[in-house]
Amino acid sequence: MSLYGELANRLREHIEHGFYKRGDKLPSVRQLATEHGVSISTVQEAYRVLEMERLVEARPKSGYFVPRESTNDRLPETSRPPQRPLEVSQWEQVLNLLSNRPANTRIQLQHAAPVMIGNTIKPLLKSLSELHRSRPEWGLGYGDIRGHIDLREQLSRLAVSSGCQLHPDDLVVTSGCQEALSVCLRAVTEPGDIIAIESPCFYGAMQAIKAANLKALEIPTHPEHGISLEALELALDQWPIKAILVTPTANNPLGFVMPEDKKQALYKLAQQYDIAIIEDDIYGDLTYEFPRPRSIKAFDNDGRVLLCSSFSKTVAPGMRVGWIAAGRYRDRVTHIKYVSSSMCPTLSQLALAKFMRQGGYDRHIRKMRTLYADSRDHLLEAIQRHLPSSTRVTRPAGGFVLWVEFAPEIDTVALTEKAQNKGVAIASGALFSATGKYRSCCRLNYSDQTPVLREEGIKILAELIRTEYPGAYS
Amino acid sequence: MSLYGELANRLREHIEHGFYKRGDKLPSVRQLATEHGVSISTVQEAYRVLEMERLVEARPKSGYFVPRESTNDRLPETSRPPQRPLEVSQWEQVLNLLSNRPANTRIQLQHAAPVMIGNTIKPLLKSLSELHRSRPEWGLGYGDIRGHIDLREQLSRLAVSSGCQLHPDDLVVTSGCQEALSVCLRAVTEPGDIIAIESPCFYGAMQAIKAANLKALEIPTHPEHGISLEALELALDQWPIKAILVTPTANNPLGFVMPEDKKQALYKLAQQYDIAIIEDDIYGDLTYEFPRPRSIKAFDNDGRVLLCSSFSKTVAPGMRVGWIAAGRYRDRVTHIKYVSSSMCPTLSQLALAKFMRQGGYDRHIRKMRTLYADSRDHLLEAIQRHLPSSTRVTRPAGGFVLWVEFAPEIDTVALTEKAQNKGVAIASGALFSATGKYRSCCRLNYSDQTPVLREEGIKILAELIRTEYPGAYS
Repeated sequence: MSLYGELANRLREHIEHGFYKRGDKLPSVRQLATEHGVSISTVQEAYRVLEMERLVEARPKSGYFVPRESTNDRLPETSRPPQRPLEVSQWEQVLNLLSNRPANTRIQLQHAAPVMIGNTIKPLLKSLSELHRSRPEWGLGYGDIRGHIDLREQLSRLAVSSGCQLHPDDLVVTSGCQEALSVCLRAVTEPGDIIAIESPCFYGAMQAIKAANLKALEIPTHPEHGISLEALELALDQWPIKAILVTPTANNPLGFVMPEDKKQALYKLAQQYDIAIIEDDIYGDLTYEFPRPRSIKAFDNDGRVLLCSSFSKTVAPGMRVGWIAAGRYRDRVTHIKYVSSSMCPTLSQLALAKFMRQGGYDRHIRKMRTLYADSRDHLLEAIQRHLPSSTRVTRPAGGFVLWVEFAPEIDTVALTEKAQNKGVAIASGALFSATGKYRSCCRLNYSDQTPVLREEGIKILAELIRTEYPGAYS
Repeated sequence: MSLYGELANRLREHIEHGFYKRGDKLPSVRQLATEHGVSISTVQEAYRVLEMERLVEARPKSGYFVPRESTNDRLPETSRPPQRPLEVSQWEQVLNLLSNRPANTRIQLQHAAPVMIGNTIKPLLKSLSELHRSRPEWGLGYGDIRGHIDLREQLSRLAVSSGCQLHPDDLVVTSGCQEALSVCLRAVTEPGDIIAIESPCFYGAMQAIKAANLKALEIPTHPEHGISLEALELALDQWPIKAILVTPTANNPLGFVMPEDKKQALYKLAQQYDIAIIEDDIYGDLTYEFPRPRSIKAFDNDGRVLLCSSFSKTVAPGMRVGWIAAGRYRDRVTHIKYVSSSMCPTLSQLALAKFMRQGGYDRHIRKMRTLYADSRDHLLEAIQRHLPSSTRVTRPAGGFVLWVEFAPEIDTVALTEKAQNKGVAIASGALFSATGKYRSCCRLNYSDQTPVLREEGIKILAELIRTEYPGAYS
């Protein structure tokens, strides 16, 4: 047996026999190397094996830990959406969610808004303020419809971290990721076409599918590995699917990061059936693992991947700055972007370009990554402590939303309304499927509340469930 | 004969016999009333008659004048586009125009960008700067997808000046008028539908028609009175037209203001055939006549008019703030706006709301209106002085673009390229028709050059024409 295999066995025994308890910090790599007389890389390899078995977890800047709970047995199962293309509905419910103003809400677990306070965002706000003071005229005229060259240069540099070689001319700046997705959908389809999506799926993407007169075919999706390639291949055989839209890196709402070999296999499948992939990477820079995993776009050698992203989750949605790397569809994407909203505001682009150039963006996301990883653990603990033991929950590898699956009798559409009356906002799972499925699920945001408020929100949900569904706690 | 009729006759004689010469200021209303012993309103009525005959013109704040030239005989004729629905082409040429950076251009007559310097725009820039300094956090989060309530309130107040009674909830804020048009087209049509438009027509609207998979049916349009209702009615009888898209007030590119009774008749026609009207009012506040004429939306009593506008021509395109009053289509418009680009940046909306509330917007457009009216006269003089006598030209009643029709042998597509090499940018007429018609026409902007540069630009065009088409000056 290899050295790292032996070490892994020994650590596994210690964990399983309770020598290291849930939540415990494990010895550092250096410490173990000294104790066992092995190399640093042997210890790292041993930890990698245990991480894959989910017996240990790495936390940025903190080291290795025994996970606070073994979530394997409480994970939702792979989703089972209906296997036929459907028209998207649920607009009324989405509008309700969007219209829900913060004033009515004391504990906001509903909107996927990032943390927007703190020192690391200040340099950006300062640049914006300075530009508006000293160069207001730069913000007035028409600019390049593809986006300001300074920003596109920085974006092409950033793309390297996800394994992409992009030229500034490969990029088109958009009004956030919502416009990016909408433009890409229109660029690769004609009305009536079928788009394959993950299930559950971000409601904004589904509403864009609806508005472009397309049909959504939801594919079974594993809560930790992403879209089922087997199910996707079956669907590709059966239906004339025009494109696949996925959020493979820090998925919304499930939180998974699709393994890189699976990303590559998805790309190969798209090649084999000659269809486009629209890759929503909006949470990609917020994976807790560092360096961040590669995007599907990194494997794209024939230009069929349209990568969409924005600063809405990493920095602030109010910036309204996103982008598309559209590969072979670039010209069509440029056309649709122009007719959709012409150019984007210049000063926001310039301020973001400076933020990136001076390292402020990297500093900011490093801090956010750690913050969100900690907040995830807090929320998972609160869920374990207060919600019924039948509750299943995902364990995100990035971003700041997770997915809760209650017992089938619990209706989150009704629960959402009742919770709102008590000042707690959640997003019902019904928004995340074309069919209104997932009525017993919900998405919870864990970005910008304090741990105390977050736990209080979960307690209020728990009380409501106890009242409405007394059987859930029996 | 009525008193005002007699007075009008006397003034007409004076003008026709050269007692008052071209460009002369006419006596003030008060002066004439005293001289002729009639009431103020009698003089006003007499002037109104002569204005309708185009023998005198009113200039804001300056009084009545004999027009610098009698343009009646040099007006282009009513356009004669092909009377069948067509797919829009010309994207390559539009992209060329959009990609034409100011750095390459000494004399910019091509882009329809407003004047963005001067004292009256400063309060807006100051607010923007102050907001970014003191309230940066307001710019970060998600806002109301319909737009900020402060701005919608001001917009509903502004609408009164064009004869509309709108509630803030009737309005949806957009990323400029381009998004407004694009959203409205998608809201009232399905792919394959036919849209009736003026001919020539703004290229951005036509490209939005193309991107929405619609067909354009160009309707003959008079250079002073707008779309031909007779031709439109024939087309409505013949084709299943889904909506009419028009720019009736300070039209781009022709510059006309459609008379109010004709606006009302157009509305009745839409009612009779039960179709929607998309009204592009982007230049509406820049008519030289004050108070500004009513919009078609003012006559809308069953919600079939979707009014689109923005601050791009009145204030600055870089603001990227527009709006839609969509009548009965409001909910569908809100949906498509949401999927298209989610919400609009908050601080720009707040700064514009303050600018309007404090009277800054009114002051600014009053100044711009006078400035553009004067610039129109300068440009018309330069055209008359230098371009071939066969040249026909419109005489805009608002905005800051006019339409030039050369002799048929002059090809403005070639001319545009040659002029660009000499540092003069113009927009070929070929961009303004789905068919690439109007190759012997061009649109000229008269907003932001000095009179000297403007005349120099026209001289350079004249020289080119003299070289390339020697017959034009014979």
